[in-house]
Amino acid sequence: MNELPRWRQIELTLLKEIDSGAFRVGQKLPGENVLAPHFGVTRTTVRRALGELQNKGVLRIERGRGAFVERRIQYGLGAGSSFMANLRDASLEPAVEILAKFEVSASTEIANRLQIPIGEPVLVIDTVGKASDLTISVSRHHLPLRLFPDALNRISSFSCITEVYRLFGYENTRRTHCHIEARLPSSEEARRLEQPKTEPILEVESVKMIDQTPIDYSIGRFSAARVSVYFDN
Amino acid sequence: MNELPRWRQIELTLLKEIDSGAFRVGQKLPGENVLAPHFGVTRTTVRRALGELQNKGVLRIERGRGAFVERRIQYGLGAGSSFMANLRDASLEPAVEILAKFEVSASTEIANRLQIPIGEPVLVIDTVGKASDLTISVSRHHLPLRLFPDALNRISSFSCITEVYRLFGYENTRRTHCHIEARLPSSEEARRLEQPKTEPILEVESVKMIDQTPIDYSIGRFSAARVSVYFDN
Repeated sequence: MNELPRWRQIELTLLKEIDSGAFRVGQKLPGENVLAPHFGVTRTTVRRALGELQNKGVLRIERGRGAFVERRIQYGLGAGSSFMANLRDASLEPAVEILAKFEVSASTEIANRLQIPIGEPVLVIDTVGKASDLTISVSRHHLPLRLFPDALNRISSFSCITEVYRLFGYENTRRTHCHIEARLPSSEEARRLEQPKTEPILEVESVKMIDQTPIDYSIGRFSAARVSVYFDN
Repeated sequence: MNELPRWRQIELTLLKEIDSGAFRVGQKLPGENVLAPHFGVTRTTVRRALGELQNKGVLRIERGRGAFVERRIQYGLGAGSSFMANLRDASLEPAVEILAKFEVSASTEIANRLQIPIGEPVLVIDTVGKASDLTISVSRHHLPLRLFPDALNRISSFSCITEVYRLFGYENTRRTHCHIEARLPSSEEARRLEQPKTEPILEVESVKMIDQTPIDYSIGRFSAARVSVYFDN
């Protein structure tokens, strides 16, 4: 690698560090005044390396503020998509933590989405999703209790909501009716997502179906600096 | 209508004004101290009406700041979707204005999306999309010139990019490869979208295909306070 120009070597070193997770998405890189002596080069050489990484969409350079890691996790919303599969596709370690679970009576909104009568019992599960220790999502799942009997007692932990479906015999769910909006987070959402209140989140509502039967109406809130979403028609 | 409680009458009046476009999505309503004398009622009565509208998802009340119109345009990203069809579905008057058109050589990114060689000529068209006079999107389209011969001279105006496809004989396009991210707008984007720089935008990249041939790689930027997107698997 020694035949490469110095700025190119620095570019590749920084890229490797970012890919390894040493610098996380949204995080600020050390300044030119730190990187130049660290690599034993001039600030001009560092600037060239950072500029190339910006052109490649790896960094976002904000004048007067510094260089921020820009690379986002691409989260697929296709019919067969799941949290686990998405993170594995991105070579990241998935982890799901249960924040709360409780029963409610279906509101109009929930009843419509799950195609059940208003007032029917529904299990709500709140989770935090992590990718290699970086918090990326806070989700709320609504499961119709008639399809998940005694679920409040039977579910203690899981590493993907798909495991819960399987526990009750539901295989091959299909994600439908995706609705996506962007907004600034509430204080609580920002705290849970470990992100600033001034940075947007992506809110993704969708329904998981077995054939024509809805089994989960979920609302996922993703840190928009860390995650983008995609699908194919 | 006089048999209805006063707060309910005020709720219905405000709802009619919002639906008529007198108050636009993202816009702030007059304060309680203005609305109460206007309707000849107490502030408590006004507050009840606003609270009901918040419960219905029509308003968002921010403590100390006021009540903001929340209703978003639901923009479909399904295979056959178009700007025109989406706005007509929402009973809004669509309008597209061309900001600029020019030729470029395909960059790596553009060439990949359009499945053409790097450096091939591409027509870029920048547009602003409006819904009943409210600016909702700023888009950039990339058309491979080999499929749109002499397009720079032949296209002078259009009210939907679908018209351009038709001019060259392309009917029944399919939207594929949708990629969605949320971020804060640049100063230029905020100015074009007539929105604050502190409010997020939704950036939607997609490709329109005729059979297996990409004919348009587009990047649409939507004001996230005015538009949310949806699709179905």
